[in-house]
Amino acid sequence: MITAQLQVPLPLQTTIDSLIETSVTDSIGFKRLTHLVDTFGPRLSGSRELEEAIDWIVETMQTEQYDTVWKQPVMVPNWKRGNESATLTLPYEKNLPMLGLGGSIGTPKRGIEAEVLVVSSFEELKERGEEAAGRIVVYNVPFTTYGQTVTYRLNGAVEAARVGAVASLVRSIGPYGMQTPHTGNSRYQEGIDKIPHAAITMEDAMLLQRLQDRGVPISIQLYMEAQTHPDTLSHNIIAEIRGSHFPEEIIVVGGHIDSWDVGQGAMDDAGGCVAAWEIIRLLKESDITPKRTIRVVLWTNEENGLRGAKEYHRWVKEDEQSLDRHVLAIESDSGIFDPIGFGYGGDSDEAVAILSAIGKRLEPIGSGEITLGGGGADIGPLMQDGVPGMGLRVDRDRYFWYHHTHADTIDKLTIEDFNACVATVLALTYGVADWPVRLPR
Amino acid sequence: MITAQLQVPLPLQTTIDSLIETSVTDSIGFKRLTHLVDTFGPRLSGSRELEEAIDWIVETMQTEQYDTVWKQPVMVPNWKRGNESATLTLPYEKNLPMLGLGGSIGTPKRGIEAEVLVVSSFEELKERGEEAAGRIVVYNVPFTTYGQTVTYRLNGAVEAARVGAVASLVRSIGPYGMQTPHTGNSRYQEGIDKIPHAAITMEDAMLLQRLQDRGVPISIQLYMEAQTHPDTLSHNIIAEIRGSHFPEEIIVVGGHIDSWDVGQGAMDDAGGCVAAWEIIRLLKESDITPKRTIRVVLWTNEENGLRGAKEYHRWVKEDEQSLDRHVLAIESDSGIFDPIGFGYGGDSDEAVAILSAIGKRLEPIGSGEITLGGGGADIGPLMQDGVPGMGLRVDRDRYFWYHHTHADTIDKLTIEDFNACVATVLALTYGVADWPVRLPR
Repeated sequence: MITAQLQVPLPLQTTIDSLIETSVTDSIGFKRLTHLVDTFGPRLSGSRELEEAIDWIVETMQTEQYDTVWKQPVMVPNWKRGNESATLTLPYEKNLPMLGLGGSIGTPKRGIEAEVLVVSSFEELKERGEEAAGRIVVYNVPFTTYGQTVTYRLNGAVEAARVGAVASLVRSIGPYGMQTPHTGNSRYQEGIDKIPHAAITMEDAMLLQRLQDRGVPISIQLYMEAQTHPDTLSHNIIAEIRGSHFPEEIIVVGGHIDSWDVGQGAMDDAGGCVAAWEIIRLLKESDITPKRTIRVVLWTNEENGLRGAKEYHRWVKEDEQSLDRHVLAIESDSGIFDPIGFGYGGDSDEAVAILSAIGKRLEPIGSGEITLGGGGADIGPLMQDGVPGMGLRVDRDRYFWYHHTHADTIDKLTIEDFNACVATVLALTYGVADWPVRLPR
Repeated sequence: MITAQLQVPLPLQTTIDSLIETSVTDSIGFKRLTHLVDTFGPRLSGSRELEEAIDWIVETMQTEQYDTVWKQPVMVPNWKRGNESATLTLPYEKNLPMLGLGGSIGTPKRGIEAEVLVVSSFEELKERGEEAAGRIVVYNVPFTTYGQTVTYRLNGAVEAARVGAVASLVRSIGPYGMQTPHTGNSRYQEGIDKIPHAAITMEDAMLLQRLQDRGVPISIQLYMEAQTHPDTLSHNIIAEIRGSHFPEEIIVVGGHIDSWDVGQGAMDDAGGCVAAWEIIRLLKESDITPKRTIRVVLWTNEENGLRGAKEYHRWVKEDEQSLDRHVLAIESDSGIFDPIGFGYGGDSDEAVAILSAIGKRLEPIGSGEITLGGGGADIGPLMQDGVPGMGLRVDRDRYFWYHHTHADTIDKLTIEDFNACVATVLALTYGVADWPVRLPR
């Protein structure tokens, strides 16, 4: 069976090819990304650093002649880690590298010292529930997939508190470590006591398991100053190039500008933000205006609240009333590694055919594969309301090595991969924005 | 040209093959290694933990019916790290993960805060000598080989002090990191001021370089309690199976029982020690006595003094007068990863032929290759006095990822690799010990 293969119309094809060429040879974007993370460091919601980074981006964008550049106010959670430590006190003294988990309460000022119960699943915790009372529960759950193991980070404190534990520690969610703790968000539940919740390294979780398996009594001293302050003001960044023919039709492309408070938040997700920014910068530089509007949105507070995504969605729905005019939402939040293509989360076969046709232009850099299913946390609310979304897919081999750690730094990324990501996102964004007809839903 | 290939004589061949088989299916050695590092942790010269580990090994060996088991007294350096920290104070505040370097002096109690000069070589330091006065010098030297870059760790303080620096920081000596500082030994020089000397991570060294390259003023607050106390008593462990025919001829096999004071010193070098111990344990268990004496030596203080190796050498030369009776010295200190073979550091072609013949028995596990050139730090003094030596060669892909770091933990090793190393060392040790004639020098 021969399927008639959809082709990108010729003038558009030429423009896309030349934009890909421009992207892969660019040197400004990666420098800008490096400057951003080196100057402002990590950017947790509620921090001065986040707002300074946002201001720098907006001020720089304002010199670049886009049709709109503005800061959308968003109230965000304001959790502060403070000083913290975990120390093995029995069978011997040893510092346990750790990171408190987002939203966790702190310990009393004198800390919490308690015997340890190591479990390898919620099931084991339930079975040994009676042993947990008054203890620090350690979840030693080997990483399989993020989806399968992150539940111990998210829900570990609730389940441990349910059986009377005084604190809980989770083996860091990641496939590999070099004594590398991973932070991330966590939850409490109405009616269940709040207890301090933190991550230790995979090495130490395994050590505690081995000690327990040999019958050695273990105790840990945990100290955390973590505190949740009242919500504070942050901002989404919104910048547009208005479409020449159908300015009311919007292609959204973005990432999240906040990060955890460790490392540089380079991969997660400064890279995605600057890549999105590069789309409109390179179009401006090339003096190209697409038929439809390209809107870059850099969402705030993806990590511990998704308030930026929620506020953008609310504003689109209630204030701008543009939900129907959102043609496609594109997110990059999987790290700026060697790009593969996009996961398309929508229902239209016709749309897949168009996206795949555009994707074929990326064959020279091997990054145009369109697969079914995909999206992202920040475009989630739009997608739930019917907006087709897609997420950039990259080689994630080491993504979860660095995720939410001190090691998420710019040196883990390369200009070649970054530029290839820019080329990939630019080709698809511009292709859809300039396609003869609106991308079907 | 056809070279007559030397063969292992038949009864010996059968015994070696069966010892390899026994080694690769063993489960006791790796458990013992795990117990050792989990129970005593890292084992720096001068620490209680090192002596407790030594005592446990000796006591366990004493239950195993070797012909001799004893502790050879050795006076060793006693450097203690104490609390320490490095903090970037300009252009913003940021903790810099660090490890003081062995032998370094501490800072004054209030620490040292100074502007930073980043250099990428001793040459650059010389050229910019005038800028270094009163500053903290940071050596940002990318890892090429250990031999080429370790000089900045060893000699960095001397060269920085020579141009008036108040402290020096070296980019950790390793090809890869996840915010992982590497400790190791360092030197001072008579007549040159002693200044504090520590390692920071590769990520942070690169960050400081980038900041300096952009003209951003940088300052660091360094705090170190490091102190060198008077020498203290440690011990080499010596255990033998006496030869049945030529007990006066000795094959030495060993590793070093001390480690740095971080991680577990699992790869460096508890693995090498337990592998050597396994040689005589498995022989005893198999009720096999070789023609010549096999002597296991677990040297103390390899890391920061080599005092164990020097004392063993002195004792052999002066007290035991057995230098000529040392047939071969085998060392394992390259990590217990997938073994390749041995590097032979000696002058006899005949010996190479014999070793290669024995090595051929390891073909099923691919670890019997004998290459020219090799040895080890602890057998160095013996080799300088004419004793042929060889060092176990393994897949060192990640050796310098973990070397002298918190990440040198048992989980980085596997029972399969450990057992293959034991099989490899055992085959060669026993093969030489039971060979019809003494291995030619």
